Amino acid sequence: MDEKSILRNSGVRIVEVGPRDGLQNIKSAIPTLTKVELVSRLRNTGLKSIELTSMVSPRAVPQLADGRQLLADREIQGFLQDEEVRHPVLVPNMRGLERAMELGVGEVAVFVSASEGFSRTNINCSVNEGLSRSRQVAQKALEAGLSVRGYVSCIFACPFDGPTSHETVARVVKDLLDMGCYEVSLGDTLGVGSAVDVKSLLGHLQRSGVPIDRLAGHFHDTYGQAVSNVWAAYECGVRVFDSSVAGLGGCPYCPGAKGNAATEDVVFLFDRAGIETGVDLDQLAIVGAWISAELSMANGSRAGAALAARQGFREQPRSHKESFGKLEQEEVMSKAQKDGSRLFQAGVSLRALWQVCHLLWRSRHKLALPLGL
Amino acid sequence: MDEKSILRNSGVRIVEVGPRDGLQNIKSAIPTLTKVELVSRLRNTGLKSIELTSMVSPRAVPQLADGRQLLADREIQGFLQDEEVRHPVLVPNMRGLERAMELGVGEVAVFVSASEGFSRTNINCSVNEGLSRSRQVAQKALEAGLSVRGYVSCIFACPFDGPTSHETVARVVKDLLDMGCYEVSLGDTLGVGSAVDVKSLLGHLQRSGVPIDRLAGHFHDTYGQAVSNVWAAYECGVRVFDSSVAGLGGCPYCPGAKGNAATEDVVFLFDRAGIETGVDLDQLAIVGAWISAELSMANGSRAGAALAARQGFREQPRSHKESFGKLEQEEVMSKAQKDGSRLFQAGVSLRALWQVCHLLWRSRHKLALPLGL
Repeated sequence: MDEKSILRNSGVRIVEVGPRDGLQNIKSAIPTLTKVELVSRLRNTGLKSIELTSMVSPRAVPQLADGRQLLADREIQGFLQDEEVRHPVLVPNMRGLERAMELGVGEVAVFVSASEGFSRTNINCSVNEGLSRSRQVAQKALEAGLSVRGYVSCIFACPFDGPTSHETVARVVKDLLDMGCYEVSLGDTLGVGSAVDVKSLLGHLQRSGVPIDRLAGHFHDTYGQAVSNVWAAYECGVRVFDSSVAGLGGCPYCPGAKGNAATEDVVFLFDRAGIETGVDLDQLAIVGAWISAELSMANGSRAGAALAARQGFREQPRSHKESFGKLEQEEVMSKAQKDGSRLFQAGVSLRALWQVCHLLWRSRHKLALPLGL
Repeated sequence: MDEKSILRNSGVRIVEVGPRDGLQNIKSAIPTLTKVELVSRLRNTGLKSIELTSMVSPRAVPQLADGRQLLADREIQGFLQDEEVRHPVLVPNMRGLERAMELGVGEVAVFVSASEGFSRTNINCSVNEGLSRSRQVAQKALEAGLSVRGYVSCIFACPFDGPTSHETVARVVKDLLDMGCYEVSLGDTLGVGSAVDVKSLLGHLQRSGVPIDRLAGHFHDTYGQAVSNVWAAYECGVRVFDSSVAGLGGCPYCPGAKGNAATEDVVFLFDRAGIETGVDLDQLAIVGAWISAELSMANGSRAGAALAARQGFREQPRSHKESFGKLEQEEVMSKAQKDGSRLFQAGVSLRALWQVCHLLWRSRHKLALPLGL
């Protein structure tokens, strides 16, 4: 039986974490309105889960110091009314939860580390203390009718403690599910795991009685393994994946570390497999190119960069940013829509030009041009 | 049974194509001695197959116009005597083969496209004509005692013709095996395939009677799928993979296209799985960082960039290139060797510093720092 038809019937859900996990380590200040626009553009691609921000202390994560301001924005307040899209907000404690609830947030995310060293450094308490803090938050959130999502960080290794045991991850995951998280996202915070690690951990979790349909994969791309890890997890039955548009993100404890799996690369993977994501990949690529240009960063998504280039979108140097307005982007989009979006067709537009040049060249030199393999 | 122990016994062979496929599309002239040094450094990492150059017309591929000069280099001539390492040279025709043989080459690679459009553009003949040209070359090479490797390009799609049928790929692969190629490398020239495409094609080839142990995977990373495709092919039984140090490469017909799978990312994948590659990853990462600095290009390998940074290797701006000599690199290497190479341990060296800062900070602000997930 054809591989594609086996897989076609089972769609996946992408949790876009760019606006929170993606932006939080960026040093330069990003205007709140840019963040609002990012969320708005992401919604327009068809994404059904977009993490908005976190309610941590402004001193702790300066980039997300405008979390409340962002949530209070009129456009975001409108988005929060939309029952078709999840908009989780990360909350570290009761105070964060209260602030989120005041602003009408319908879903919060709690988080714990599977390793003691990272837990102490990141949230200043032991793993068990982190779990009981999360339990408190989850209980109050559930009582108030909110949904609660759980995160586990350092599922494969910790920058301080070395490798993480599967047993510890299983214990933390079960605790998060027990406290009422509707799903738990497994975070390879350092991005050190590869496909075999993913299969090994998921196998252990299943044998420990963790239902696979309550798990999500959250793979950082430090060692270029994120897409491969997503596919490995998919093959084990995971159907929810966290990712960042343009591969935004990083980890402050990991030199050379890259961000999350790029949403564009992940959507490309599933699109090719005929697995439904609900996301318009061409449109997403434009969002990734746009935010990369806004932040003056190289586009961290390979698929995104290729598809945006194919749609005529070129990165603008910072000094020309002002000229890079909505109009130009709309022109690009309408051109892209006119052209259609089949990946290998972009070459067709080059073909005529190429063949003319080639003919002229060959007529002079009478030789073959073995340029590509 | 543990995933890792199932897989540990079956090693893979990496065919390093950086010096040929990786460099051929780079516009600026690279000194022949830099290419020789690249090959030499790659050999020192433990790689057992390194494609040296191609014998195409200097007009066709200006970057490899020094192919004969490179092969004639004394150091390279010494390498060609080493029976432990394969050093294939790409040859498009009989003249190329003769030149390679004159210079003592022991292995050549022939190539055909699985699509008519690419074949006509790349080598100016139909697929069938390409096959008969390759057959001529292979026959003469085999008679002279050389080994012959085969390449098929555009296995999933062609920039001119769209999707490639599995049947066409199977026919071309069989022809290449029939003419005496010891293995055939399946090239996703555009980098548009993903894991399901790989499994689907390899399934078809196996059902068509192609022995899987005569195949190699050659995946470009245009859409960020290369590592995932390598793993998918591994799971289907493929044990040979082409890749480029620092992800060097690209395709002239594909805007935004990236290079080959980065060797560092591929070796990382297999290292984590306990699958033998024979390659020293830390040393390879330094080679990737070195050649990226030499070419003033961003390092295209995520694992390579992370591991080189971890070993204290920083990219040098072009203007400071002269000061970036062998001594500095040797110092870096010996430091790396002293430090050991466990991936997650680099954080340990940061830990003391971090904890001191953290303590000072917290003593002032009494708050937790939820920075990473």
